[in-house]
Amino acid sequence: MAELTTRNGDPFDRTLFESLLKRRLFYTESFEIYRTSGNLKGDSRGLYDYGPPGCALQSNIVDLWRKHFVLQEDMLELDCTILTPEEIFKTSGHGDFLRADHLIEAVLGARLKGDKAARGIAGEGDKADSAGKKKKKGPKVSDIKAMKQEDSVVAEYEEVLAKIDNYDGPELGQLIEKYDIRNPDGDTPVSPPVPFNLMFKTTVGPSSASPGYLRPETAQGQFLNFKKLLDYNQNSMPFASASIGKSFRNEISPRSGLLRVREFLMAEIEHFVDPEGGKRHPKFDLVKDLQLSFLDRATQLGGKTSLHKTTIGEAVTSRMVDNETLGYFLGRIYLFLLKIGVDANKVRFRQHMANEMAHYATDCWDAELQTTYGWIECVGCADRSAYDLTVHSKKTEEPLVVRESRREPLKVEEWQIDINKPKLGPLFKKNAKAVEAALSSLSQSERESLATTLEENGIVSVTVPEMAEQVEIFKNLISIVKRTRIENIREYIPNVIEPSFGIGRIFYSLLEHVYWHRANDPARGVLSLPISVAPTKVLIVPLSTHQDFVPLTKKFAEDLRGLGISCRADESSASIGKRYARNDELGIPLGVTIDFDSVKNGTITLRERDSTKQVRASQEEVFGAIECLISGKEKWEDVFARLPEFLGQSGDD
Amino acid sequence: MAELTTRNGDPFDRTLFESLLKRRLFYTESFEIYRTSGNLKGDSRGLYDYGPPGCALQSNIVDLWRKHFVLQEDMLELDCTILTPEEIFKTSGHGDFLRADHLIEAVLGARLKGDKAARGIAGEGDKADSAGKKKKKGPKVSDIKAMKQEDSVVAEYEEVLAKIDNYDGPELGQLIEKYDIRNPDGDTPVSPPVPFNLMFKTTVGPSSASPGYLRPETAQGQFLNFKKLLDYNQNSMPFASASIGKSFRNEISPRSGLLRVREFLMAEIEHFVDPEGGKRHPKFDLVKDLQLSFLDRATQLGGKTSLHKTTIGEAVTSRMVDNETLGYFLGRIYLFLLKIGVDANKVRFRQHMANEMAHYATDCWDAELQTTYGWIECVGCADRSAYDLTVHSKKTEEPLVVRESRREPLKVEEWQIDINKPKLGPLFKKNAKAVEAALSSLSQSERESLATTLEENGIVSVTVPEMAEQVEIFKNLISIVKRTRIENIREYIPNVIEPSFGIGRIFYSLLEHVYWHRANDPARGVLSLPISVAPTKVLIVPLSTHQDFVPLTKKFAEDLRGLGISCRADESSASIGKRYARNDELGIPLGVTIDFDSVKNGTITLRERDSTKQVRASQEEVFGAIECLISGKEKWEDVFARLPEFLGQSGDD
Repeated sequence: MAELTTRNGDPFDRTLFESLLKRRLFYTESFEIYRTSGNLKGDSRGLYDYGPPGCALQSNIVDLWRKHFVLQEDMLELDCTILTPEEIFKTSGHGDFLRADHLIEAVLGARLKGDKAARGIAGEGDKADSAGKKKKKGPKVSDIKAMKQEDSVVAEYEEVLAKIDNYDGPELGQLIEKYDIRNPDGDTPVSPPVPFNLMFKTTVGPSSASPGYLRPETAQGQFLNFKKLLDYNQNSMPFASASIGKSFRNEISPRSGLLRVREFLMAEIEHFVDPEGGKRHPKFDLVKDLQLSFLDRATQLGGKTSLHKTTIGEAVTSRMVDNETLGYFLGRIYLFLLKIGVDANKVRFRQHMANEMAHYATDCWDAELQTTYGWIECVGCADRSAYDLTVHSKKTEEPLVVRESRREPLKVEEWQIDINKPKLGPLFKKNAKAVEAALSSLSQSERESLATTLEENGIVSVTVPEMAEQVEIFKNLISIVKRTRIENIREYIPNVIEPSFGIGRIFYSLLEHVYWHRANDPARGVLSLPISVAPTKVLIVPLSTHQDFVPLTKKFAEDLRGLGISCRADESSASIGKRYARNDELGIPLGVTIDFDSVKNGTITLRERDSTKQVRASQEEVFGAIECLISGKEKWEDVFARLPEFLGQSGDD
Repeated sequence: MAELTTRNGDPFDRTLFESLLKRRLFYTESFEIYRTSGNLKGDSRGLYDYGPPGCALQSNIVDLWRKHFVLQEDMLELDCTILTPEEIFKTSGHGDFLRADHLIEAVLGARLKGDKAARGIAGEGDKADSAGKKKKKGPKVSDIKAMKQEDSVVAEYEEVLAKIDNYDGPELGQLIEKYDIRNPDGDTPVSPPVPFNLMFKTTVGPSSASPGYLRPETAQGQFLNFKKLLDYNQNSMPFASASIGKSFRNEISPRSGLLRVREFLMAEIEHFVDPEGGKRHPKFDLVKDLQLSFLDRATQLGGKTSLHKTTIGEAVTSRMVDNETLGYFLGRIYLFLLKIGVDANKVRFRQHMANEMAHYATDCWDAELQTTYGWIECVGCADRSAYDLTVHSKKTEEPLVVRESRREPLKVEEWQIDINKPKLGPLFKKNAKAVEAALSSLSQSERESLATTLEENGIVSVTVPEMAEQVEIFKNLISIVKRTRIENIREYIPNVIEPSFGIGRIFYSLLEHVYWHRANDPARGVLSLPISVAPTKVLIVPLSTHQDFVPLTKKFAEDLRGLGISCRADESSASIGKRYARNDELGIPLGVTIDFDSVKNGTITLRERDSTKQVRASQEEVFGAIECLISGKEKWEDVFARLPEFLGQSGDD
């Protein structure tokens, strides 16, 4: 991979870049004064605070996300709790079937078997499993490869397995890391789904009998509310819910700055769609001609990473992307990323390998952003099929289904059993109900064969689980007939397309994309953030600390805030060029200079960050231009064309 | 207290009101399908999800808060982590000095002493403490009142004290509740500060050696970043930081719906101010003439709750409110509450009693909103003095101070010790440094007396902690002289004024304030939310399900969303009146009706929720009016005056 460069072709210097972000308080390690003074005994890594410019940038990104998705797509936004009882994650599969101890047992056990196979001692079989320990129900590790291990490794594995019950959650996490234990459904790293011990555990309420976890994603709250949401949406399909909030993963070793942290902001969408009819999307036409860079499964299987540029329409037609709805969201994700300022040349959509996806997923694509840490997964977009609603529905016996009137009633030919209850009841007395249940649970093929028997022999034998023996039923008690049933209502469990945004990763990658420095001077860093997400919109700089400028500076700041425009006044005694330079580091797109002419005739200059060009006009005209630039009604080129250029001291040379 | 009424004088029916909120999905109990199906074994109360209208209302309130405070006041917003290591809370006083077991011991012990005093057996003294248990360092309970307890109560207390070490956190919480244990600094309920066992505990990272807690407030993150914030603010004082985020308290018994919950959204401001000069505020004049309803300390001490209506200016001048900055924020809080739609007649500012405040607080006022649950504390506004910065600074040895150039240099007369190092060094060899340190740590009065001794005897004795005996120093080694030192820099720890908003409580109380029902018909509930916070701004209702209306409905919805305006189309077959009524329940302020004239000539009607009045005009005019109403440029009265009234079928009779 060629070395990454900034937008003006300089090599990207991450040390310089990260030092700018920390120096200007975009973010900082949490509890830093405790850490540096040696007052934190334990592990508190992977936790970051966002300072004023970072917090504003983050909240502007979230704001645009809400407008781009929730408002434009009429989604139903929810705010669900972070605290979640254990039962929910057991059902959703975040816990039980991936109990970390079981997983480690299964994987290390399989490796030992593979080792024995390679050593030709396969006959000894399950030694590790039978070493005095009851075998637990664990995940299946299907492919045991004959592969010899070092003797010392074998000894180590056997020791771990022997004392597997003695490790606590965090220690199990360390073993997973140490031995590179992967998910059973293929070869994915263990996350997601997140085993219990990678979730933060706590206790809810006064009794320790209520274990709870900090959610590792916002999705489950949305699934649990599906029925109410469908009702709120007046039973109309398709629809999407959305949620923005903090999620948590107790990473064993947080690293790469903001990219692998323990507490992070997520924005997730659950789009509920009818699984029949090809998952078409009514607004697909709006995105179908967008060209994206795809890295599909086949290419990766061939060991390559070359990107395939094509339209979303073509990608769906060729079935590279599974369906229209998935394709629609890839397009919307791409448009969102461009809107906030991501470099279009540093975005790719990578398809998950079959063994990389959850077992229930139909297809999954990640929007990855190129950074100095490599290609970073910033948005996942998965077709989760009907998995989540199905498991929660099964557990709670709450029907999480859509019931729709059929346009054309459906005709179903089926064998029906008519029971002569007045006769059957007295005959079987207290067992009557059980007999009826056994009859109605018969399958269509069983019914058909019983119908023949009944017709031929006048009697059938039926197994009733509650009764010891088979029950004989004469033809005066039941009749089995083939009839046509008309179904006016269709009932189905929707499938879910889930675009899931890691806001912190987007935040960091975006900042890498917009960072550069002027004229070979690494000390003059600039963050070319679009005006819509820039933390502060306008910088106000009086020419000097002269007292005449103080009231005007104050007035302009108040006027701008009155218009709802965030601004920052830099009244320090540093030179004007220096003040512009240090506020370029904050990505402030517009600058207003107050000089002696401003005091005399009320005119001010307006400077654009990237070009450093300036215009000069009255306060009213300049403020009007600022409003147009922020609302998107005008671009800088328009303003520069219509207002007179100012060539006085720019301080930008 | 007179029964609460709605805005049009009907008695307030909370059952009806809460059923509306839940039915329309403003909020719902979390995990409800698990709860109702009996799948939650433990305690998961006090956790609520906000549905689409609730989530939008909450986010609009937060948005206005950010504009009203962060933008208008140029505050530095932070986003700090929820996860916080134990050490931080130990320092801030959320834990150590309030260890729940110590607290219970101290309080019950004191009650037993009081009982003994009342029974005249004071001589037996510390029996409870000496009952075989080492006395722990605990909070002081200064006032032991002679007061006889029931014999059974005495026995119970003694039993609890005997086994105090055996209770776990939650059990201690129950004891605190059961015996009504109050904070040691007076008589406040135990929260805040929150004892460890009322915080949710978890473990950070792979080792169990790193206990962490979910923050019970956002404040600590702001204090820990003080130095960086001051630097970001170019060392300029005063300034404020702000933070919006989830906080958590493991309430023993959550109750009163959204009012006492375990996970909640807070918005907090920490305004840092110079403690000298009376804590004046530069913008005080903007609020000084606002009239508020005060319930001050003196009135409460007199056993009354009558409100004292006066201006903030008067309240500060009379010293009822401690200082200008505190008064300024009371005014800003009041203006914010009115802006979001709180009923001015249901707001009061209640002063904390001396024993209700934290020991370090100078003054504290709560903005309370009147609801059917009584007066609810929704915003606290406390002067926390320099407490937090002082304790964190002491713990970390990081100077959390402001250093300012003095306008007038300060002249300090002081005794200085000049050491003749070339002679003292060789004389004391390896102890030379210790001697020097001992000399420079001498106080001014010690120096003065030593100067006299040295002058008279030519020798002085000095205690050097590192050396066994007193050291004798001759006058050839040191001289002690009085000089005038000029201090150009002033260094101080700022005081903190903390307005702290419970968004969930404000959310609920606001909804009570805006709820009413039309014309004696409890089934026709209305939420008269101001347009700025209303979850959805515009309802679109086609006259019927006629196919001709479908494209127009779709177009209007898209056009409005294109303008950034949230809307909802109700295309169901219910009557138009019924559709308006059910969307009044969602607080949608504006309604657009599409009828056959719309199809013919493009005109539409615009309905205002509270008056149910309608106007009719072209799409362009109506959408223009909608934009003006949302931006606040026009009020409904203006629109109603300038556009022709529509008296056709309103459906609102």
